[in-house]
Amino acid sequence: MSLYSDAKTIWENAIKAALPDQAVQKELMNLDLGAKKKVLLVAIGKAAWQMSKAALETLGDKITDGIVITKYDHNLGELPGLKVYEAGHPVLDQATIEATDQALKLTKNLTSDDVVLFLVSGGGSALFEKPQIELSELQDITEQMLAQGSDIVELNTIRKRLSLVKGGKFAKHCAPAQIKTIVLSDIIGDPLDMIASGPAYPDSSTSADAFAIQEKYGLVLSKKAEKSLAQETPKVLDNVNTVVIGSVSQLCNSAKETAEKLGYKAQILTSSLSCIAREAGSFLASVAEYYQTTNKSLAFILGGETVVEITGVGKGGRNQEIALAASKIIAKCKQTCLFSIGSDGTDGPTDAAGGYVDTDTLAKLQEKAIEPRSVLDNNDSHRALKAVGGLIVTGPTGTNVNDLTVLLIKR
Amino acid sequence: MSLYSDAKTIWENAIKAALPDQAVQKELMNLDLGAKKKVLLVAIGKAAWQMSKAALETLGDKITDGIVITKYDHNLGELPGLKVYEAGHPVLDQATIEATDQALKLTKNLTSDDVVLFLVSGGGSALFEKPQIELSELQDITEQMLAQGSDIVELNTIRKRLSLVKGGKFAKHCAPAQIKTIVLSDIIGDPLDMIASGPAYPDSSTSADAFAIQEKYGLVLSKKAEKSLAQETPKVLDNVNTVVIGSVSQLCNSAKETAEKLGYKAQILTSSLSCIAREAGSFLASVAEYYQTTNKSLAFILGGETVVEITGVGKGGRNQEIALAASKIIAKCKQTCLFSIGSDGTDGPTDAAGGYVDTDTLAKLQEKAIEPRSVLDNNDSHRALKAVGGLIVTGPTGTNVNDLTVLLIKR
Repeated sequence: MSLYSDAKTIWENAIKAALPDQAVQKELMNLDLGAKKKVLLVAIGKAAWQMSKAALETLGDKITDGIVITKYDHNLGELPGLKVYEAGHPVLDQATIEATDQALKLTKNLTSDDVVLFLVSGGGSALFEKPQIELSELQDITEQMLAQGSDIVELNTIRKRLSLVKGGKFAKHCAPAQIKTIVLSDIIGDPLDMIASGPAYPDSSTSADAFAIQEKYGLVLSKKAEKSLAQETPKVLDNVNTVVIGSVSQLCNSAKETAEKLGYKAQILTSSLSCIAREAGSFLASVAEYYQTTNKSLAFILGGETVVEITGVGKGGRNQEIALAASKIIAKCKQTCLFSIGSDGTDGPTDAAGGYVDTDTLAKLQEKAIEPRSVLDNNDSHRALKAVGGLIVTGPTGTNVNDLTVLLIKR
Repeated sequence: MSLYSDAKTIWENAIKAALPDQAVQKELMNLDLGAKKKVLLVAIGKAAWQMSKAALETLGDKITDGIVITKYDHNLGELPGLKVYEAGHPVLDQATIEATDQALKLTKNLTSDDVVLFLVSGGGSALFEKPQIELSELQDITEQMLAQGSDIVELNTIRKRLSLVKGGKFAKHCAPAQIKTIVLSDIIGDPLDMIASGPAYPDSSTSADAFAIQEKYGLVLSKKAEKSLAQETPKVLDNVNTVVIGSVSQLCNSAKETAEKLGYKAQILTSSLSCIAREAGSFLASVAEYYQTTNKSLAFILGGETVVEITGVGKGGRNQEIALAASKIIAKCKQTCLFSIGSDGTDGPTDAAGGYVDTDTLAKLQEKAIEPRSVLDNNDSHRALKAVGGLIVTGPTGTNVNDLTVLLIKR
């Protein structure tokens, strides 16, 4: 098999291993719904469709009604008895608010005889929202923070307070109905109050944290927004049972297993990579360089979620930047490739899931007069990798559990 | 033994292993000086004193005269028969030019019966220089480039053309005398035309490269400087024999050996790390996090030379930034430490060789109200590590072969 087909086998198997279907089914199969009147499903996030499909397959018409809110182009077909909405991500839009309104209406005036199946996956922060302020101001704040490189923790601390559903407030809204929450984690360490901004989880962040973030990024806020920041979020919720399924470990362990089957000596280096994307690429390229004298095939596997440093105006994503940043040194390494892929099938605001580079990539770039360094300075990795067939395109995968980065040295 | 004393043993042994003494002696012992009239020694760089001492011990009064140019505070004592000069580094000064003038006088009008022993180590770019332009302009250009984060390759391409000794020009000056060059490499991959800007090595960079760099950094140059950039450097030199001794591999291999003796399972990840310092720290911290469940003691070893991204006005160095950037995550890891050290004993413009952090460092920082992230944003790692006893101070070590970074997880 070629290096490329080894790589492709590894990422395809890893994504399959991280699909939520089996885990969702296992959780719901044992759920006692005996005396419940209403069994409502609310699913939010990039994997909402896939998780809802698994729930329907398990519970069928025991589910009395339900709403699924996912990203545009992530509705993969009809789900009998459920309404599927698509909305904006990473920046929420009017469709988000309308869909969330429907979910709030569906779950209004519930009793302790009712239950809400709440299926949460990454992307939920933008896809499930009813702001206390004007949408335009919320979008403006989000964009200001993203442009300054704020991380998801900071972003969510602010958004929880500006929201009527985040930070445990959706659970309050559903009370006294019980909520069974199944979370497909896309944040390192599975912090339940952060994933999708924790609509059904007590909030550990405080108003003081929020004001510190406001100061750090110099956010200019309306009076209404400042008032929202000052409101504390629920610290205790007694109507919620939460379980986490899936995680980046599944991605990494699957990649290791497949690589070993393909004859590589495989090592997981981390499952919590969080540095700047292009620097991770440079770091891994130097590992590739060191191991060139190996006589065994080697695979180095990493999971996590890196950060793109915005220095330009091009199009790309963190996985594409990791790959492109490695291309210059990988060119000096024989039979060596590096790929990085977002398990949700979306890397940044592009149609690609990630990027692939190998020994020949740099020469192909140079043929087209593309210089990786200046492309990265302009955050334009998508155009560069597209020009040399280095994009990994999967479409929405049905899951969302961080990124997978793999370095292969074949002998 | 404590984690700290394990770490200290590893870095002390590694620096000893990278001293140039034995290798210099071995090279000179076999040198045929039979019919030579003058045997002149010219040593430049941060390890110049140590290399000259080794040469004197081998050849004694066969050396007819000599000049040693090293960094301030790097003259470790009298060297019989040799004149030792100290000068500015990383920014050269008037003392550099005066010392270089003495070296040029000493090696003027030589014949083919003479030989020059040319001992080169890192730092030579600033310590051996006679510019074609005013010193003030040269300093200004160097500072402009350093402040914009230019790498050593770019810096040297420019400096070679503005110089009367760099880029092979010193070898031309000594001709027809033979030059025996011994190079202690401090640049990854040992590019001989780059180390100390290659005074006795044919230059592979071109005027075109130089003008491209001028454009990249928007360097404003005098007419004289522009004219110098346009002059081509020697591409062939027939009076030079060059040998490279020492390298970052010695540092890494020694660290591995010591770690293994101390009971660690040790792995070298790379000997050519070159990414941004603080990102390397974050990357390695995530490796530490992953391996917390290990029941064996583990050592991850890296060599190379990272880059500091200038975002503030504080004091620090690349090794101190690597260590400090890891402190937040290392705090979550039991019996874990990370250190990074410059083999020359100098990390950035500080009196420290590098930094050390372990499980307790973050708490100590927090006690003093020091927040690693904001310290790094201000490039102020030295102050922070000093406050918590995290500096590694060795003084000048006598060698200069890149940096060593080690992550230890003790069980």
